[in-house]
This record gives sequence, C-alpha cells and structure tokens, in this order.
Amino acid sequence: MTKIQMNINRRYFKLVCVFIAVIMSHLTMAKTQWRSLDPNNTVLMTLPYGKVVIELAPNVAPKHVAQFKKLIKQGFYNGNKFYRVIDGFVAQAGPDARHDSAAKLKIESEWTPTKNWPFMPVQKNDLFAAQTGFLNGFPTGYSAEENKAWLTHCPGMLAMARGNSPDSGSSHFYFTIGQAPRYLDRIMTVFGRVVYGMNTIQAIKRTATIEGEPEVSPKFNTPILAMQIMGDVPKAEQIIVEVERTNNTDFKNKLVNRIARKSAFFYKKPPKVLDVCQVPVLSRLVNNK
Amino acid sequence: MTKIQMNINRRYFKLVCVFIAVIMSHLTMAKTQWRSLDPNNTVLMTLPYGKVVIELAPNVAPKHVAQFKKLIKQGFYNGNKFYRVIDGFVAQAGPDARHDSAAKLKIESEWTPTKNWPFMPVQKNDLFAAQTGFLNGFPTGYSAEENKAWLTHCPGMLAMARGNSPDSGSSHFYFTIGQAPRYLDRIMTVFGRVVYGMNTIQAIKRTATIEGEPEVSPKFNTPILAMQIMGDVPKAEQIIVEVERTNNTDFKNKLVNRIARKSAFFYKKPPKVLDVCQVPVLSRLVNNK
Repeated sequence: MTKIQMNINRRYFKLVCVFIAVIMSHLTMAKTQWRSLDPNNTVLMTLPYGKVVIELAPNVAPKHVAQFKKLIKQGFYNGNKFYRVIDGFVAQAGPDARHDSAAKLKIESEWTPTKNWPFMPVQKNDLFAAQTGFLNGFPTGYSAEENKAWLTHCPGMLAMARGNSPDSGSSHFYFTIGQAPRYLDRIMTVFGRVVYGMNTIQAIKRTATIEGEPEVSPKFNTPILAMQIMGDVPKAEQIIVEVERTNNTDFKNKLVNRIARKSAFFYKKPPKVLDVCQVPVLSRLVNNK
Repeated sequence: MTKIQMNINRRYFKLVCVFIAVIMSHLTMAKTQWRSLDPNNTVLMTLPYGKVVIELAPNVAPKHVAQFKKLIKQGFYNGNKFYRVIDGFVAQAGPDARHDSAAKLKIESEWTPTKNWPFMPVQKNDLFAAQTGFLNGFPTGYSAEENKAWLTHCPGMLAMARGNSPDSGSSHFYFTIGQAPRYLDRIMTVFGRVVYGMNTIQAIKRTATIEGEPEVSPKFNTPILAMQIMGDVPKAEQIIVEVERTNNTDFKNKLVNRIARKSAFFYKKPPKVLDVCQVPVLSRLVNNK
C-alpha cells in the first residue's frame, strides 16, 4: 500500500467515524418535535394574574369537552370564582348554585384504546397503574389486562367535579395543583391539560385554611375574568402554543436519557424508573404574548 | 329466667354494644394528635407575600442543620434571592457568588436507622423505594435490605443544592414545589420541611421560561426579606405551629382510612396503595398570626 493510499484510507476512516458520531448523536440526542394545537379545542382562561392556555382532549372525553366548549361560548364561566382551592391538591371553580343550569354528563373516566393508538409507554408497574405513558402529551394510564386507558391526575390536568354519582358532573371543574392525586384516576373525567401558564394557576388564591387560622373570606376568591375558545379570540390576542410530540423516537430517547441520568451530577444513579407525572412535556410560544 | 332478668340482660347487652361501638369508633376514627416544634430547630422565613415556617431535621442531617442555623443567625440569607425557580420543580435561593463564604458540607443524604426508630410505614414497593413512611412527620424512604433511610423529595421539602461533587453543598438551598422529584432521593441532603405557608412558597416568582417567551429579568426575583430562627424571634411575632404526630395508632388509622376510601364519593375504589408524597401531615396554628 502506498503512503497516499494510507492517507486516503485514514481520511476515509475519519469521515466514517464523524458520520457514525453524527448518527449516534441524532439517535441519542433529545431533540424536540413540535405539534400545533387545534384552536377550536384550546381554551384561553384569563385570571387577574395572567393568562392560561388549556388543551382539551375531545378524543378521550368527547361529551365533557363538547359541553365545556358550549358553556364557554355562552360566557357561562366569565366571572365564576375559584371557590375551593387547596394548596397541593386542587383549584376548583364553577358558578353559583342558582346559576348552574348545565346538564349532567355521563362520566368519561376511561376508554378502550384502539389498535395502534399513539401511546408512548413510560413506566410498567407504576404504583397506581400497570402501565403509564403519554397520549399526545397527556399523561395516561393503561391496563393491558382490562384493555382500558385513562388520563392520570398529574399536576396541571383539568377535570370535571361531580357529586357522589359518577354521572353527576356538569360544569364545575378543577385543576390539579400539587402532588398527583392518582387515587382519583378512573373515577373522574379528566378532559384537558394546562399547556401554558401553570405558574398563573399556582397564583390562584387558596381558600382552605388550617386549624387555628382565620377563614379566607369568599370576597378574596380568584375570579375567572374571561374564558374563551382560542379560535374565537381575535388573532392579535391569541396565544399560540405548540407542544412537544410524545409519540416518536425523539421523545422516546428523552425518556431513555431521563432514566439513565448520565450527567455527572448523578454521582450515584437513581432507580431506573420514571414517574409519568414528573416527566415534563414541553410547550413553546410561537407568538410572543 | 324471669322477665326482669331478661330486661337486665338486654340492658347489659345494649351497654356492651354501645361500649364496643365507642371503642370501634375510637379505633377507626381519624383523630389528630399534635406535637409542638422546637423553636430552636424551626425557621421563620419572611417573603414579600407572607411568612413561612420550616421545621428542621437535626437528627437526620445534623451538619447541614447546624450550618444553616449558623448562617441564619449571621443574617447571611437576609436579602438573598430566589434565582432559580422552575414551576413544578424547585425554588432555589442563595447568595451572590462573591458573598458565598459558607463552608462545604459532607453530604447527609441517608442514614442507618437505629432499632425502634419511630417510623410509620406507608407503602411497600413504592416506585422509588422498597418502603415509604413517615419519621416525625417527614416523608421517608427505607430499604430494609440496605438498612438505610432517607428523607424523600415530596413537595415542601427543604434541601441543600450542590455542584457535581456530593460534598459540595454549602448555603444554596431549594424547596420542592411540584410533583416529587424522587430521582433526587439519596443523592441530596434534605434537611427540613415546610409546616406552614406552602401557599406563600408557591407565590415565589418563577424564573424559568419556555421557548419563545421573554426571559424574566433578575430584578423580579423574589427576595428573602428575613430568615430567622423562631426561638430568636420576639415572642409576639412568633408563629407557633404544631404538627400531626405520625408514629401512633391515630395516624395509622388515618392511613388505613385513606387507603380504604370508604366515602360514597368513591363509587369505585382506587388501588389499595398510598403515595407517601400525597398523604397530608396536618399543621395547626396555636397562636393567630
């Protein structure tokens, strides 16, 4: 072999190495792929402290989403108050009893997934579910044995309140604001997710007090200044949010990296498990509001 | 048997029934037993939005608690800012780099429990620990195999920040403010717990933004107006908090009831498990502030 040939071979070898490195980094790097929201299934809620964007889940809870949207379009929620706000648990809002004209809804707390649903598994034998994962960014529980799936009560989920009867939800709703109350999974209708403004949700005035503390007067309850379907908001006032896709290799790689915790900060590696409620699904603002 | 005897027997039987009912209700009712805090291991943190009371855990992390108290007494933290605040994760504070004179501490992330430690078990085979439970109100993980215990990163815990080295924590600290980041268990020194004012902690201005959102100027960072050892605060300004005892039958009964979910609201019962981070340990105010 001549010297020139060797040099060419070396250069070729280097090129192949670089090529492999690029491929490897693409395979392991946590890129983010984005998905736009349907403005007609997105809600803009205006509180005194800021604006909140909620993605609805019509595929999962079609009747609840339909009624929620109908009520929003009627202006039903404008001026409603968050009257039951328990730090670390829920922020619940709804109309005064005498203004609650909404129809009662049959519960939509779980469903039977179809084959090839875009489910991204996260954790087997989670404390509350045989399997957890994401469905289009929504944290989801799944039981293969029962072939049932449900949205889980992770922080920032929107669900319908109800009485003791499963089919008694109508208009009063809550956001989960603390450690996931997963014991409510499968017995409540979860039908949306905060995709922007969770810090604003956290600013909602708490109404629950502890023993020995004076009661909070209802006059301090946080009002909903406006609740609108994003598609009905004038273009200039819309908040356009995109959310991370959760059903592709990029997101899967993120999960793998999150379990591995390769950073030197983890001088001792944690158990190789993931709490689905502690896996962030990213949002980004496409316009600046 | 005469009629009188029968009546006496009936009355006796009734009395026994009532007695049994009272005993049963005592056994199953969730009473609360209270414990006072040691004012010299309790911290009063004043934020622009209100006051926060933190119970320290000197038994678990003696060196971290000693240094934290020493710094507090020096006025070290007064005027410090919460400069890293990520919604759903942590609120972290500390001095400017040029004012960080505190000594580095050997990590105190776990310990070997002694026999008969006052541990109240909550859940076996929790996702992140062989056993979870409470130690004097502090959520705790335990591995019998390793005979190691550690405080878990439930919402409202206080821990020391650090660099990559385990023994690099000194003065910068964080509160957990969202779904428990349990993957940090056993590799961080958790040394306190918010027992009053978690809503005030939740009001801390977030510093993290999402893609497309303008950065938050550091001038909006929430300052610590004052940080004091409760015992050093003038009596009239002290906030006296008592916390629920977690190592007795009353608390055990609460756990049993919480798993059973006997209320009619639970038309379908959830899995018979408890997330230790989702079990409230009550506080009450003994004076009114």
